[in-house]
Amino acid sequence: MQSPDFSSQLLSQAVDEFSKLPGVGPKTALRLVLHLLRQDVEQVDAFSSAISRLRKEVKYCEVCHNISDNDVCSICSNPKRDASTICVVENIQDVMAIEKTQSFRGLYHVLGGVISPMEGIGPSDLQIASLVERVHNNDITEVILALSPTMEGDTTNFYIFRKLADADVTISVIARGVAQNDELQYTDEVTLGRSIINRTPFKK
Amino acid sequence: MQSPDFSSQLLSQAVDEFSKLPGVGPKTALRLVLHLLRQDVEQVDAFSSAISRLRKEVKYCEVCHNISDNDVCSICSNPKRDASTICVVENIQDVMAIEKTQSFRGLYHVLGGVISPMEGIGPSDLQIASLVERVHNNDITEVILALSPTMEGDTTNFYIFRKLADADVTISVIARGVAQNDELQYTDEVTLGRSIINRTPFKK
Repeated sequence: MQSPDFSSQLLSQAVDEFSKLPGVGPKTALRLVLHLLRQDVEQVDAFSSAISRLRKEVKYCEVCHNISDNDVCSICSNPKRDASTICVVENIQDVMAIEKTQSFRGLYHVLGGVISPMEGIGPSDLQIASLVERVHNNDITEVILALSPTMEGDTTNFYIFRKLADADVTISVIARGVAQNDELQYTDEVTLGRSIINRTPFKK
Repeated sequence: MQSPDFSSQLLSQAVDEFSKLPGVGPKTALRLVLHLLRQDVEQVDAFSSAISRLRKEVKYCEVCHNISDNDVCSICSNPKRDASTICVVENIQDVMAIEKTQSFRGLYHVLGGVISPMEGIGPSDLQIASLVERVHNNDITEVILALSPTMEGDTTNFYIFRKLADADVTISVIARGVAQNDELQYTDEVTLGRSIINRTPFKK
């Protein structure tokens, strides 16, 4: 629905704003706006203020750079977490994904991306210096690199590995292999090859 | 992503609000919220205020009940439109769709739905009384019924037809038939049957 006659500037503006969201076209935007229009004023206020407050009041944890309501996030300030292990991730979605597995009780370090010369992202654009500092100034025994299994992720892994070479810390990388319920015949050669090379003892 | 640990109440609230939109699940909501989080404060303010203003300030045209910034909408107040023809539609999206065809120069009447006993929508929940009044009090020569080609639409058509029986006005229904680029073999029987019964003279 290109440049529709909206007969209302207010409607047109709201649809324009929604259309700027990724993956939201003008038709979806109109549908969402008309949905909001049918809600109570309180409901719509809650929606718009939640978004505006988030952008203005949200903080990033001083320690791990995860999103937070306070200066230090709820994970870093939790005394029950293992403060000697740091899991390095690309972004806050990765923190959520790992938290959901309930397999990790250490702390995180959010880089804010990976090194990508193509996109002009260098090490100084990421929270790598603060990671190195954090490892040196704290009693850290292990750094787990949990970046994307891509060329950029591998480059970043290697860069961090070199930067931490003189630190007395174990550096590990999350396992790569066939995913749960994957069909072997459709798994790419690199992944399948690695899964054989990095095979683990069978646990009964 | 059920009940994820968001480590931020503000983030969690914003994602909750987005998740209430139709067709937006928690993963999409998170993606949209994180997108907004990366925008400038001004940009996010424009987004949230456009929505809040729309809900609070938008009006509905006193004449045709279309969405409007003023008491009378830009279509009803346009002297170039043919004020003797009224096209009856279900909702404001239908007004936009018909406006986009540029095939209609008359005015509209937005019912706000169709009669649906199943959903508890009766004639008094719709703008039918105001349509009848409008037809009687103005110099209207034709009422075009452009409702959905469904049982509810047909019921509403018939109800309006009866209500306008004593008015000196032509009542017509938009043509039903095979759509542009439809394949005949996949067209349903009712539509195909009607398209033969209601065939029109071939224009050279």
